[in-house]
Amino acid sequence: MQLRVKILGIDSGGKPFVFLNKNDADELNITASERVTIGRKQKMTAIVNISSMSVKSGYIGINEEVRKDLLLKKDMWVNVEIAPFPASLQFIRNKLAGKRLLYPEITEIVKDVVDGNLNENEIAAFVTSLHIEKIDLDEATSLSRAMVSTGKTLKIKKKIIVDKHSIGGVPGDKTTLLVVPIVASLGYTIPKTSSRAITSVAGTADRAEVLMPVNLTIKKLEKVVKKCNGCIAWGGSLELAPADDIFVQTEFSLHIDPLLLPSIMSKKKAVGATHLVVDIPCGRGAKMKTTGEADLLARDIIELGNRLDMHAHCVVTFGEQPIGNSIGPALEAKEALEVLMNRKSVPDLVDKACNIAGAIFEMTGRKNGYLLAKDALESGKAEAKMREIIQSQGGNSSIKPEDIKIGKYTLHIRSEKTGQVLWMENRIIVEIGRAAGAPKDKGAGVVFNKKNGDFVKKGEILFTVYAEKQYRLQRIKNILMNQSLMGIGSKTDMLIHKIEEIPVVERTFVIDR
Amino acid sequence: MQLRVKILGIDSGGKPFVFLNKNDADELNITASERVTIGRKQKMTAIVNISSMSVKSGYIGINEEVRKDLLLKKDMWVNVEIAPFPASLQFIRNKLAGKRLLYPEITEIVKDVVDGNLNENEIAAFVTSLHIEKIDLDEATSLSRAMVSTGKTLKIKKKIIVDKHSIGGVPGDKTTLLVVPIVASLGYTIPKTSSRAITSVAGTADRAEVLMPVNLTIKKLEKVVKKCNGCIAWGGSLELAPADDIFVQTEFSLHIDPLLLPSIMSKKKAVGATHLVVDIPCGRGAKMKTTGEADLLARDIIELGNRLDMHAHCVVTFGEQPIGNSIGPALEAKEALEVLMNRKSVPDLVDKACNIAGAIFEMTGRKNGYLLAKDALESGKAEAKMREIIQSQGGNSSIKPEDIKIGKYTLHIRSEKTGQVLWMENRIIVEIGRAAGAPKDKGAGVVFNKKNGDFVKKGEILFTVYAEKQYRLQRIKNILMNQSLMGIGSKTDMLIHKIEEIPVVERTFVIDR
Repeated sequence: MQLRVKILGIDSGGKPFVFLNKNDADELNITASERVTIGRKQKMTAIVNISSMSVKSGYIGINEEVRKDLLLKKDMWVNVEIAPFPASLQFIRNKLAGKRLLYPEITEIVKDVVDGNLNENEIAAFVTSLHIEKIDLDEATSLSRAMVSTGKTLKIKKKIIVDKHSIGGVPGDKTTLLVVPIVASLGYTIPKTSSRAITSVAGTADRAEVLMPVNLTIKKLEKVVKKCNGCIAWGGSLELAPADDIFVQTEFSLHIDPLLLPSIMSKKKAVGATHLVVDIPCGRGAKMKTTGEADLLARDIIELGNRLDMHAHCVVTFGEQPIGNSIGPALEAKEALEVLMNRKSVPDLVDKACNIAGAIFEMTGRKNGYLLAKDALESGKAEAKMREIIQSQGGNSSIKPEDIKIGKYTLHIRSEKTGQVLWMENRIIVEIGRAAGAPKDKGAGVVFNKKNGDFVKKGEILFTVYAEKQYRLQRIKNILMNQSLMGIGSKTDMLIHKIEEIPVVERTFVIDR
Repeated sequence: MQLRVKILGIDSGGKPFVFLNKNDADELNITASERVTIGRKQKMTAIVNISSMSVKSGYIGINEEVRKDLLLKKDMWVNVEIAPFPASLQFIRNKLAGKRLLYPEITEIVKDVVDGNLNENEIAAFVTSLHIEKIDLDEATSLSRAMVSTGKTLKIKKKIIVDKHSIGGVPGDKTTLLVVPIVASLGYTIPKTSSRAITSVAGTADRAEVLMPVNLTIKKLEKVVKKCNGCIAWGGSLELAPADDIFVQTEFSLHIDPLLLPSIMSKKKAVGATHLVVDIPCGRGAKMKTTGEADLLARDIIELGNRLDMHAHCVVTFGEQPIGNSIGPALEAKEALEVLMNRKSVPDLVDKACNIAGAIFEMTGRKNGYLLAKDALESGKAEAKMREIIQSQGGNSSIKPEDIKIGKYTLHIRSEKTGQVLWMENRIIVEIGRAAGAPKDKGAGVVFNKKNGDFVKKGEILFTVYAEKQYRLQRIKNILMNQSLMGIGSKTDMLIHKIEEIPVVERTFVIDR
C-alpha cells in the first residue's frame, strides 16, 4: 500500500513506530502493536499504532527513529506492507508454553529485540517468562552469546584481560574506584566499564564522573587502556550488549531480574575479559539474603564463565550496611580519593577492595593477593595509577579531595536514645540519598558517623544529609518521620513491626549493573 | 514542577501518556514508563515517555487522551509531579513471585488497567504470569467481579435472563444467529452481545451486521430487548468489562488466553444473565483438543458460574471442521437466513443450534428442549422473531437471502484426486478467508461443497472462494500452493508431515470472544 509520510516529531528511545489510520490498517489487515515494513528502496520494520485522529487515511505517521533511518520527508510516498511474521515471536510463545529455547531461537529473539521488531508486550512477556520459568545454564549461555553478537566488542590484544563486577545492592559501594587503579598499577589490563545508577544513589560511572569524563568512545577507551592498563568508563554509550539495556527497562518496572547472569557475562565477554571476579554482597537488605543463595549464584557464574571461555571467581561480601561512610556520587568519589591518598582510614572499604583485587591476582597465578593489593594502596602506587587514568580520560590529574564540590545544605540527624546501632536499612538509605537529589545532583548524599555495632549517646549525630537544593531537605524530614534507616537499641528489642491490614509490601530491589 | 503544554496531536487507544524532556524527567527523578500526575485543578495519571528531541525542557507533550480529559490548550501551565506508586504494581510483582492474589488486590489491578495507570510492560507481565502460573477459581472469581465492577451493566428487570456463549475457534459458526431468535420466540429474554472477529474470518457481530445495525447504545439495546425479548448487538462499544478489551491485546499478540474464563463470565454477569449455556468446540483444530480438556473447562465454567450466582451448563461440540457450508460475514448471514426460512438444509448447523437452545430451555425447567427448539425453527416462529429483532435494531425486516451482497470474484478449487475428505484444517481455512478480505470485506469468504467424510471425484469442486477485490484471489492461489485446507485420500494415508530442520511452529490460536 502506498501512503504519504506525516512526520510526528517524536522520538522514542530507539524504537521505530508508525501511526496508521484505522481504515488503512483494516485494509492491510493489521492490528495495533503488529508490524509493518515501510520504505522506498531501503526498508525497515516498525511497530504499528492505530488511530482515527492522529493521521488521515492515506497517510502514515512516523516517529524520528523511522524518519532518520529512512531519510523520509513530509508528504513523501512510501510503500507500507504487513511485515512477515517474526519467527522470534513464535519462539517467545514456545517459552510461554514452557519449552526450553535453543541457541538459534534465542539469537533470533535478541536480534529482533535490538532491531525494534518486537513490541513492548512481547518483550515484557519474554522477560516475565524467563523470570517465572527460570532459565537454565544452556539458555543463559545462549543469551550471553546472543547479547554479545548483537553488540560491539572491544579489541584489546592482551593474553590476560581481567575484570571485576558487583551484582550490586549495597549503597556506597565505591570499591571499583580502588580496585581498578590497584590492579592496573601492577601491570594488569582492566578495561572497566560501569553503569550509572538506575534505582540506586550512585553507579560507579556516576562516582567516577566526579573525577574525570567517563563518556568515552570505544576508540578512546582502547587508547586509555593501552596507555594506563585500565580505565573507568560508562558502559551505556558503548553499545556492548545493547539488548540488555532494553531488557532492563522491563525488569526495572517489574522488580525482576532474570537476565542478571547473561547481562553480567555478556558485558564482560564483550570487553574481552579472560579472568573475572564477581562480588556478591549478601545479607538482609542485599540482593542475596543468605550465603546459601549467594553460593548457588556463584556456582552458576563460574560455570557460565567456563562455557564462555572466561575464568570466573566470586567473593561473597557483607552487604547489610553501606560500604564506607558516604553515599552520593561526589561524597563517594571524595572518600575513594582520600583512601587512595592514605589520608583516611575506611577499613571496610579497603578490606573489600583488597579482597577483590587480591582474588584477581590469585586467579592469574600470584600468591598473597590481598597483601599485594594492600601494598599497592599503601605505597601510593594505586593513587599514581588513578591520577594517570584521570589524566588519560581527560580529567584533572592533580585533583584533591577538597576540590570536590559537596552540596552546601545539610541536615544532621541525631540519636533519640542511647544504645548500640543494631541494624541499618539499605532501602531507606537509598530513598534518603535519592530524595536528597542523587544521582542527578552529584553533591547530594549522606555521610554516616555511626554504623552497625557502634555505640551512640542520645543527641549524638548519627548521619548528615547533604543537598544542593534546600527544599529537598524538607522531604527527607518527612521520610524520616515515618521510618528509620538505623535501629538503635539494646540487643533485647525483639519486635520488628506489626501487620494489621493487608500490607502493600515494599521490597528492596536494585537493578543497577 | 510547572511545565507548559505541547499538544502532540496523537491519540493512543485510550491510554493517557505524556512526553517529558530528559532534563525535566531527571529533575522529577522519573524514568521512562513510570507515571506522573498532571493537571491544573483536575488531575490525572499518565505514563511517561522521555525524549530530548520531542519536547523542549520546560514543556510537556500530551496526547489526545490527556488533552481531552483535562481540557488543556497549547502553552497552558500545568503542574506535573511524580505519581504515587501504584499499589497494583506491587500486587503484580507479588503474582510474579508466585503469590495468589486476593480480591482487593485484583480489583486494584483491574481498576488501574482500565484507568491507564499501568504501562504495557506491566500489563503484559500480569497477563503472562496468569498464563504461566495459572489462575485458580478464587482468582478467576475475583477477576470476573472486578471486571464487572469497572464496567457498565445492563439493567433488565426479568427474573430469568438467559445467554449463550461459544469459546470459539471453529470457522463458520453462525449458531448464535439461530439460537437467539429460537430462544426469544419462546418468550425468553436473551440480551446477546457479541464480538467482532479479531483473528477469525467473522465474529457474530460481523455476521449480524450484514442483516442489521449492531452498534447499539446500552439504552437502545435495553429497548430492543424489552420489545423483542432478544437482540444481537456488538459488545465492543458497550463498555461491559472494558478491562478485557485491554487484556485481550496482550493475549492476542502472545497467543495466550489466561483470562478466558473471567472474560466470558464477566461479560455475561454484566448483561445480568441468570442462565448460561457455553459451547465448547472440541477436536484437532479447535481450542480444546480433547473431550477431557473440554470437560475440565466445563467444570470450571459451571463452578465459576455458581460463585457469580449464575447457572451455567456447557455443551461440548464437534469442532474439527467449519459449521455449515459457508464462512465469511455475508455468506454466513445468508446461510443462517436460509436456514431460518427453511429454504435450505444445513444439518450440522441446525443440530448445534437446537442443542444449545434446547440446553437453555432444559436448564430453566422445560422438557424436550431440543424438540422445542427444532419446532421453533421449523414452524417459522424463529424466522418471525429474527425479522422482529432486525426491525427493532433498524434493519430491513423483509430482507431475503438473495439481497445479501456476495463478493463477485470467485475461485473454484477442484480435487486433484478421487477419494474421501479425511480432514479439514481450520487454521488454513481461516487464513484463506482472511486473505479473501474477510472480515473487513463482508462479501468475502468461502463456500464448501465437500466436508469431512464426503466422497470426491478428481476434478470436482471442493470449495469456492469469494472476494470483493480480484487481486486478493492471487494471494489465495499462492497460499494453496504450499498447503491444503482439506485432505483427500483413502483411509490408509499415514504421513502427516516431515520435519527436517528446527521448525517455526504455526499453531491455531483464536482469541475471538
